[in-house]
Amino acid sequence: MAPTAEAGEATRVRLLEATATIIVERGWGGVSTRVVADRAGVKPGVVHYHFGSVDELRRLAGMRPLRRLLGRFLAVAEVGPPREAIQAVAAASVEEYAPGSDESTLVYEVMLAASRDPQLAADLHQLLLRIRTALADGIRQWHPAPAASPEVLAGLISAAMDGLQMQLLVDPDLDVADHLHPLLHLLGPETTP
Amino acid sequence: MAPTAEAGEATRVRLLEATATIIVERGWGGVSTRVVADRAGVKPGVVHYHFGSVDELRRLAGMRPLRRLLGRFLAVAEVGPPREAIQAVAAASVEEYAPGSDESTLVYEVMLAASRDPQLAADLHQLLLRIRTALADGIRQWHPAPAASPEVLAGLISAAMDGLQMQLLVDPDLDVADHLHPLLHLLGPETTP
Repeated sequence: MAPTAEAGEATRVRLLEATATIIVERGWGGVSTRVVADRAGVKPGVVHYHFGSVDELRRLAGMRPLRRLLGRFLAVAEVGPPREAIQAVAAASVEEYAPGSDESTLVYEVMLAASRDPQLAADLHQLLLRIRTALADGIRQWHPAPAASPEVLAGLISAAMDGLQMQLLVDPDLDVADHLHPLLHLLGPETTP
Repeated sequence: MAPTAEAGEATRVRLLEATATIIVERGWGGVSTRVVADRAGVKPGVVHYHFGSVDELRRLAGMRPLRRLLGRFLAVAEVGPPREAIQAVAAASVEEYAPGSDESTLVYEVMLAASRDPQLAADLHQLLLRIRTALADGIRQWHPAPAASPEVLAGLISAAMDGLQMQLLVDPDLDVADHLHPLLHLLGPETTP
């Protein structure tokens, strides 16, 4: 009997979650079809049915928390002023990137793997472009007199967010919101809707 | 015959360089005393003579390029205005963090290892504190009217530099200098010596 679409999606998610756990525990190179199948309690054929290769499985599993964060960011960035998106990221960073958390280990595994996998680097680049575009659009809409072009400021803000998240790993007491705050000066006055 | 101090130092450097190469090729977990000794053309006992453990060897090998970058940064930051240190980092980033370069892979291996090794995280934290302190001192010395406290601005600048270096990995065309430039507005006017 062919699985229903819903059951198929549930299995797919279970396989991605098992893969993420294995990446955190054993590293990117520790993922194999057999190990993932064992962890998810399915036969190896089920993994092959859902994913074309171990590389594809790792990429999708590693990008999943990043895409979730992106979704949360866009939900705020696409409706309100950049200030609110920046504050939302600051709050999420502290929750999600606690030093030694599985989430932060997974993100570093993804970054490191991207240094060896051009497809993964391209996926991360797309994600970065979406963040920058949403920020630049927000600056254009809400800030009539920014201190630099919306594109440059969006790039700077996204980099500062990335850098602070990275630094949280070695400096758990870092106040992300406090350090992002001066960037608001560069945006200039915010229009009232 | 006991090795002279100079020969000992040369061997030590050779072992650290061999270790860095192995980390890039095989990952952090691929380093063992035997593999490093083979690569450097010495007996395993020589590795034990110079380094207390594989963990210590990996930490020192991984931190080495970062300490070198720190040295270059401090050499500029401790004499000139923060603007020059920021520009120097922008120039060095492009040289050192080319996507897929050994240097950038090594840095990600170090960051990832730090998420599992508190001692390495503490070493990276110390390095970060030295960068922030040098920047904050520079701001105090050269900028009488910054847009936020020297400490907060120094933290923001160091985070933006880290974030841009990280983004270079997935976006090789990123103009680091261009994106750091708006931060100079936050420093306010520069005093003339």
